[in-house]
Amino acid sequence: MAQAQKITPRAKDYSEWYNDVIMQAELADYSPVRGCMVIRPHGYRIWELMQRALDDMFRATGHQNAYFPLFIPMSFLAKEAEHVEGFAKEVALVTHTRLKATGKEGAQAVAPDPESALEEPLVIRPTSETIIYAMFAKWIQSYRDLPLLMNQWCNIVRWELRTRLFLRTTEFLWQEGHTAHATEAEAEAEARQMLGVYRQFQEDWMAMPVITGRKTDSEKFAGALRTYSLEALMQDNKALQAGTSHNLGQNFARAFNVQYQTASGGLDYVWNTSWGVTTRMIGALVMTHSDDNGLVAPPKLAPVQVVIVPIWKTDEERSRVSGVGGQVKADLVNAGLRVELDLRENLKPGAKYFEWEAKGVPLRLEIGPRDVAAGQVIAARRGGGKTPATLDGIARTVTAALEEIQTALFDAAKQRREAHSIRGPTKAQFIEFMKAGGGFAYGGFCGSAACEAEIKRETAATVRVLPDPEFRSPDPARTCLWCGKPSIAEAVWAQAY
Amino acid sequence: MAQAQKITPRAKDYSEWYNDVIMQAELADYSPVRGCMVIRPHGYRIWELMQRALDDMFRATGHQNAYFPLFIPMSFLAKEAEHVEGFAKEVALVTHTRLKATGKEGAQAVAPDPESALEEPLVIRPTSETIIYAMFAKWIQSYRDLPLLMNQWCNIVRWELRTRLFLRTTEFLWQEGHTAHATEAEAEAEARQMLGVYRQFQEDWMAMPVITGRKTDSEKFAGALRTYSLEALMQDNKALQAGTSHNLGQNFARAFNVQYQTASGGLDYVWNTSWGVTTRMIGALVMTHSDDNGLVAPPKLAPVQVVIVPIWKTDEERSRVSGVGGQVKADLVNAGLRVELDLRENLKPGAKYFEWEAKGVPLRLEIGPRDVAAGQVIAARRGGGKTPATLDGIARTVTAALEEIQTALFDAAKQRREAHSIRGPTKAQFIEFMKAGGGFAYGGFCGSAACEAEIKRETAATVRVLPDPEFRSPDPARTCLWCGKPSIAEAVWAQAY
Repeated sequence: MAQAQKITPRAKDYSEWYNDVIMQAELADYSPVRGCMVIRPHGYRIWELMQRALDDMFRATGHQNAYFPLFIPMSFLAKEAEHVEGFAKEVALVTHTRLKATGKEGAQAVAPDPESALEEPLVIRPTSETIIYAMFAKWIQSYRDLPLLMNQWCNIVRWELRTRLFLRTTEFLWQEGHTAHATEAEAEAEARQMLGVYRQFQEDWMAMPVITGRKTDSEKFAGALRTYSLEALMQDNKALQAGTSHNLGQNFARAFNVQYQTASGGLDYVWNTSWGVTTRMIGALVMTHSDDNGLVAPPKLAPVQVVIVPIWKTDEERSRVSGVGGQVKADLVNAGLRVELDLRENLKPGAKYFEWEAKGVPLRLEIGPRDVAAGQVIAARRGGGKTPATLDGIARTVTAALEEIQTALFDAAKQRREAHSIRGPTKAQFIEFMKAGGGFAYGGFCGSAACEAEIKRETAATVRVLPDPEFRSPDPARTCLWCGKPSIAEAVWAQAY
Repeated sequence: MAQAQKITPRAKDYSEWYNDVIMQAELADYSPVRGCMVIRPHGYRIWELMQRALDDMFRATGHQNAYFPLFIPMSFLAKEAEHVEGFAKEVALVTHTRLKATGKEGAQAVAPDPESALEEPLVIRPTSETIIYAMFAKWIQSYRDLPLLMNQWCNIVRWELRTRLFLRTTEFLWQEGHTAHATEAEAEAEARQMLGVYRQFQEDWMAMPVITGRKTDSEKFAGALRTYSLEALMQDNKALQAGTSHNLGQNFARAFNVQYQTASGGLDYVWNTSWGVTTRMIGALVMTHSDDNGLVAPPKLAPVQVVIVPIWKTDEERSRVSGVGGQVKADLVNAGLRVELDLRENLKPGAKYFEWEAKGVPLRLEIGPRDVAAGQVIAARRGGGKTPATLDGIARTVTAALEEIQTALFDAAKQRREAHSIRGPTKAQFIEFMKAGGGFAYGGFCGSAACEAEIKRETAATVRVLPDPEFRSPDPARTCLWCGKPSIAEAVWAQAY
């Protein structure tokens, strides 16, 4: 294990802080492959917990998991014009299938065998609409086959030039839902439903408040009719797109000829939706809650929810505190909690605290000889605060504390977001706000792509969403904050990841 | 949903039968990408159930999941000489990262952009030893960091010319365990332990008897010191390698410089193991238990364990039988079972039976109006046999029936295997056995690669394993069944997938 190191404070260098938190918590590491990272066990456990929770929600809404090929024939991508344009600059292409000895030494010992060149190169999926809807065309014949509700958990490759751990990597992990419906209304309802599922997950599990709404045309998915997204505000006041849900209309159905016989005997194209969230959410989680001591993980997604640290000086004390520690661990595990008992001999309690704090464990239970005598432990919360807790009923006490911590994290993140949101600024205020560090700016929007482009150029802010009704200002501006023309919808602007 | 079709009988065309079972059960489908298949929801559910069971076993033996890059720099593969030789002929190579418009129409509209050519091509992982041990070199400093016990669930690509659904596909899903140890003995114990975990899973969950043992040098993993494997006998009397576990020695540690400081202050290379099982197990499951009516799934891995089919003529009857069906379903779901209640209006009961049988559901509960009156259901087992079961205590009855079915499937498969095994044949008997359809032949083996090669050429049989003690014949032959020289170990031969 690497030596524990000091984490760069947020105030000093936010970007360094973010990397330090990830490295110290052992969530991920840089790999020898450009733009690709390794997700280490502590980080991968968070992903598994995320997957479990989301997967249950997908099943509860009638979706089934399946697995489609990693490879997409190059020509498939080209079938939907906007789609190929959107992804052409970032696809990994497989062109050969054999290596050949070169006779050289070392790293140059092999090279692609020219005789193994593929007739048609294969694209590594940057998303799977094309391959999945090609299969849908085979499976869907009649209205009885609809809706078809599928989901896939897999890896994705988009060739990125500037990468950051979790937030933007050449390869990442995600789920992509893909559905087919008989009517536009059903597809729209599905796209909205899954946006709601994501919101529930991100708020309830990640303790991360989000704003939902619709993307403008310039920010929508390549090939979609409408894109909805969830936007969260990070601690540096940059927005992070935490998930998207697309009503794809009949665009892909036409490109891949996904037709069905209607109840009345006619023939029509299906309406598709697709929706996805990625390992990027781990980066969002880090930047929503963590502090200068390292990761802060919301209890529901913490790989370790409780760490028990016995404290001893003599062997006799060690035996006593360890025994009680073991008993407490058993009680908590029985209550369904994820618990570590840290009995390492070669580390002082302080060093253990330091390490488990960096790893984001929400609650630490310290047990010294005097605590054993008093029939109690000392419960220290990751966010601060120490209180004794009696051994009697410890599982109930701990469970309640974890619930409190989960709620408090959400509340704190929401307060922070609101403290960095402005509503109805003038153009000058808007420019100043974005210059001074940014946040969410709610303002009127004329709907023109020209205004959007100009705002982006001058302030680096983009329309994150045209917010859903519940997120709109009570009294939204009537004119575009930039050009002053009548507003067609309130918009939320921010600089973004 | 495609029209139900008749399955080719095994006796008529085994290979057609296998494909028919998979297509009718909707386990998988052919994809437009050469050599790649789509795993459909019913098949993917089996994989998820397999994953859950295995993952629990891996955790219980101290392993942690992580995720490593899909891409491996070409030069990494070349660092271990046997390894690159073993995989050179079957690797997909990424050489470009952008598409470019060609100005042509349709499928030729785009082509790889020559300006995006990579300096060093990337190999899509055919297995991850090289990239994982490169990371181990970074993480392991001291004996305190050992053992390091990791596992990865991921997709793998090996370019195959002749593919078969589940058994051999260009892309497949698997898990690969990778560990590092301080001593050879520990690595050997780990490799053996994981072989035991696989055996337990395949016998207890898949109801598939296996023979475990060591591979000969000609069949071992490219780069391993020793390879252990599990071999099962399919219904066509061909062997299927169902999993492998490798003691990699210090081969990769030397190639990737994975060194650690010993307790006494010295420096030594670690000892590695790797072990994997794949979606191929789904093919093995199909070929171990299924029959001419379709899939037979062992209850522990059946996506649907019980299907309830209410039978009615009138609306009044429908309401009564559906009500009881719903109640039974609730009881069974409460008992932790996976249950479907088939209330489809447009299908006759017979057609429903046909469909659920093809899908391998172990137990069907039929509920007609007279059954309701008698307070019972009719329980029909997938393997044959109908008995009434009282509604009172139905969950207990069903659970017991599923356990019986699970055990009976294992026993039947084991009996079949033993009926197609011979021990101590003469050379002539061996040749005749392999010509007559084959099976497992236990015989003496001189250990020479020349004998192995000759046997393969003349009978298509290979040494599946040098069996572990508990699988050896009570009185093993003293001489090689082929050349008559002294035997160095008993071997199990078979023609194999």
